[in-house]
Amino acid sequence: MLAGLLCGKGTCVTRMRVLGVDPGTRVMGYGIIDSECDEPALVACGILAMPASVPIAKRLDYLYRELIKIIRLYKPNAVAVEQPFVAKNVQSALAIGRAQATALLAASSRKLPAFEYTPAQIKQRVANYGASSKEQIQEMVRLQLRLCQAPEPHDAADALACAICHIYETRLNDRLSQQ
Amino acid sequence: MLAGLLCGKGTCVTRMRVLGVDPGTRVMGYGIIDSECDEPALVACGILAMPASVPIAKRLDYLYRELIKIIRLYKPNAVAVEQPFVAKNVQSALAIGRAQATALLAASSRKLPAFEYTPAQIKQRVANYGASSKEQIQEMVRLQLRLCQAPEPHDAADALACAICHIYETRLNDRLSQQ
Repeated sequence: MLAGLLCGKGTCVTRMRVLGVDPGTRVMGYGIIDSECDEPALVACGILAMPASVPIAKRLDYLYRELIKIIRLYKPNAVAVEQPFVAKNVQSALAIGRAQATALLAASSRKLPAFEYTPAQIKQRVANYGASSKEQIQEMVRLQLRLCQAPEPHDAADALACAICHIYETRLNDRLSQQ
Repeated sequence: MLAGLLCGKGTCVTRMRVLGVDPGTRVMGYGIIDSECDEPALVACGILAMPASVPIAKRLDYLYRELIKIIRLYKPNAVAVEQPFVAKNVQSALAIGRAQATALLAASSRKLPAFEYTPAQIKQRVANYGASSKEQIQEMVRLQLRLCQAPEPHDAADALACAICHIYETRLNDRLSQQ
């Protein structure tokens, strides 16, 4: 899954491309990040959206097919999906669960490993603080990807944050396993 | 999707085969019902189960593939999925949402129409009372399918009840549209 290489500083790091997903059945954010020599770089980001008036089976089918197109196009090594432990209400939790399953099934259909991260884990890895606000995360994503402005809409920024979180988590685990 | 025919009583009814699904990521119930001349008949039922220790992405992939095998084997005309509006907690709602999405995506991958019914709708159609107990529903499923004993486990009985609900709902809509 990952290709090891030596960066300029002489430390062994990993080269990888990650698809991050912010799951929602009305708006699903996605973001592709490359990581090489400790520098995450933006490849692409955006949203997949469908009106709530479209039947849920049709919306999920659309999201599944579009995610597979994105995976085919950008060829990530892994998929990272945000997994909230809280939701406004049961209906919102059901919708998030459906969107998560769609992303996980799209990953497995292309034989890609999928990982889940809670919002607190993502905030901790991306902004070093588990209770950061949405705006702080957007700004940290902008800084880490060296962008002129924060990625919009916030669903796309959240998906990028999830991908960055996976890169940091993998890198940390790689370093720990080398010790 | 449906083939119209005249039954012995001279009323136009519909012939169909329905896959009912009781969604859960640890245990998913399924049931296939045939309907012809006002008589629902059991074709098959069972459960798909995986330990909670298996990562969720792997569990969903297993459920998706097994549902597609069931659809290929029994060739239903439609899929009916239970859609609760309440859940014990957010974690339970997320899990149900994931399982529902898996069933809806399996249906759409085989170009089958999918329908969702709330527990109250299912209870009303199967037992004529929206607040029936689980045991009452199991008994009504047994009576309507003319079985010696109630289908076990209750996940399979719930899936059969969902399929029966879809048959009654479709039949009612057909009759209303003929008036």
